[in-house]
Amino acid sequence: MKQNSTEIASLGEFGLIERLTARLQRRNDSTLTAAGDDAAVIDLGDEVMLLSTDMMTEGIDFDLSYFPLKHLGYKVIVRGVNDILAMNAKPQQVVVALGISAKISVEALDQLYEGMEHAAKELGVDIVGGDTTASINGLVITITAMGRAKKSDVVYRSGAKEHDLICITSNLGAAYMGLHLLEREKRVLKDIDNPEPKFAGHEYLLERYLKPRARINILDALKEEGIQPTSMIDLSDGLASDLRQICRSSKCGARIYLERIPIARQTTELAEEMHIDPVIAALNGGEDHELLFTVPIDKQESIMRLGLVDVIGHITREEAGVVLVTPDGEGIALKAQAFDR
Amino acid sequence: MKQNSTEIASLGEFGLIERLTARLQRRNDSTLTAAGDDAAVIDLGDEVMLLSTDMMTEGIDFDLSYFPLKHLGYKVIVRGVNDILAMNAKPQQVVVALGISAKISVEALDQLYEGMEHAAKELGVDIVGGDTTASINGLVITITAMGRAKKSDVVYRSGAKEHDLICITSNLGAAYMGLHLLEREKRVLKDIDNPEPKFAGHEYLLERYLKPRARINILDALKEEGIQPTSMIDLSDGLASDLRQICRSSKCGARIYLERIPIARQTTELAEEMHIDPVIAALNGGEDHELLFTVPIDKQESIMRLGLVDVIGHITREEAGVVLVTPDGEGIALKAQAFDR
Repeated sequence: MKQNSTEIASLGEFGLIERLTARLQRRNDSTLTAAGDDAAVIDLGDEVMLLSTDMMTEGIDFDLSYFPLKHLGYKVIVRGVNDILAMNAKPQQVVVALGISAKISVEALDQLYEGMEHAAKELGVDIVGGDTTASINGLVITITAMGRAKKSDVVYRSGAKEHDLICITSNLGAAYMGLHLLEREKRVLKDIDNPEPKFAGHEYLLERYLKPRARINILDALKEEGIQPTSMIDLSDGLASDLRQICRSSKCGARIYLERIPIARQTTELAEEMHIDPVIAALNGGEDHELLFTVPIDKQESIMRLGLVDVIGHITREEAGVVLVTPDGEGIALKAQAFDR
Repeated sequence: MKQNSTEIASLGEFGLIERLTARLQRRNDSTLTAAGDDAAVIDLGDEVMLLSTDMMTEGIDFDLSYFPLKHLGYKVIVRGVNDILAMNAKPQQVVVALGISAKISVEALDQLYEGMEHAAKELGVDIVGGDTTASINGLVITITAMGRAKKSDVVYRSGAKEHDLICITSNLGAAYMGLHLLEREKRVLKDIDNPEPKFAGHEYLLERYLKPRARINILDALKEEGIQPTSMIDLSDGLASDLRQICRSSKCGARIYLERIPIARQTTELAEEMHIDPVIAALNGGEDHELLFTVPIDKQESIMRLGLVDVIGHITREEAGVVLVTPDGEGIALKAQAFDR
């Protein structure tokens, strides 16, 4: 095995998933789609069931030294449910698997569950079961979410068409800057007895990182307006990467306009203070947990009237690539990591 | 938080789950049952969907120094699917979430997926999606399995009635002894350059631990004979613990007979060599991944004729408790951990 030892980083996450799933076969007629979207789609007749799983591990996806367990519980449910929302389906049930390290007390788990149930209540989902095991090193949480939709309502990543408008549900980069702030204060205060982290004025960024909101209201509003997105994805890896996913699945290109990408004032201010380009935070930061979707161009007026989303560009032909247009009209090919982080 | 810090061990796994799930509310009519059985039950009309999640962490649930990844892949699928089988439902889809540590190569993941797909093929299920994240300390695998059944076919833990026969699908304790053997050889050989573990003659035990089989064939045979179990559970924690689960859910007692509990010759031999009571291996060993179920007494003849299961006792009234009857007729109250491991 030593002779054939390829590092995972050399493939990248998508390359890895493609390689691993290439061997998988479909045996049940009820399996409509498997890998390659926010959730798997399972046939129920007129309706479909959506199924999605999401793992978070301590030290990689969260740091318990500053992540309150109540917020963590809230966030894991939002993350899990977001994958169902990104298929334009109604989330209904979730199951929770926990790997619990020895340092976690019962009271800590109480808080985690309190946060989970709080999110479940807001989102109208039921936590219907779970599994607990021990974990030698750190807390692990897997949320598997299930939802239902009419077959014709399901929105895939693959439906974007030329000229479609590209929309996002909130400003970007805020969660990324919230995380950077928490990491900075942890670093700065690590040897201090009674640390007093400087969070004043940054509450918005912290909330965006620690307690992201699911945008059910926007999906409901789109439905009321009779606007069905042609493609949709949960913004978890960053705009650049997730837009490329849509383009890849839909076999299309995209043009987005730098000055149309909404970035909150608080994001810009902290980014500048920390010598980070706010555009990079917005393009590559990730963890926004907003929705990125496309709508037909003839819905432009109704989308604008809604006032709930930002239109940041439009879909082009595949040959045109995925391009970020700067204010002076220059087009930059967008990589998954547009610049170095 | 320091003042209110209860260790999880003080509650036990069931106490913990009861405490955590007490706050959970049901908001969707489609949620038929939540915690408290092998899988959650979700209403689809005439049919139901079963959903179950299972996490395994390195160092607790498996040791990669002797657990081949191909077998591990096979086993995680069997474990996941078994929870669906234990509801008397047909497993159809699974999703896989992986926490991957830096020492895992792409080729190692290939093997894991090869084992998973091999089990999926045997069991007729589709691996329909997944999630990968990094893990700082060790591999973590969560399998979430989904299955379908007619509402009237679902078998819960709670349906056992007085006089029902208690059946198991194979001999017990073999997986436990397989694990002990692997641990012993690891210990003995840890400082040796070219270790040659002594596995000869113990292949059966190793296979029972490393590659447990799902008993779909037995469920099919029961169906053909028109025998519907009144209650059923996946034997994962050990006969004593899992039988007590059935009795607790069904509000009944049980009498099982020591001399009827099947123990393989290989299990007894190695147990004696290692100074372990083979009965303890069978009662408390766990990881058997067989099915424990009850059938009405009037099915005795057809169950016997099938010749696929062992009848080890019968259900009694709750007041009688859960009792192990020794060959000389003495009754011993069965605790979840009947004796110290």
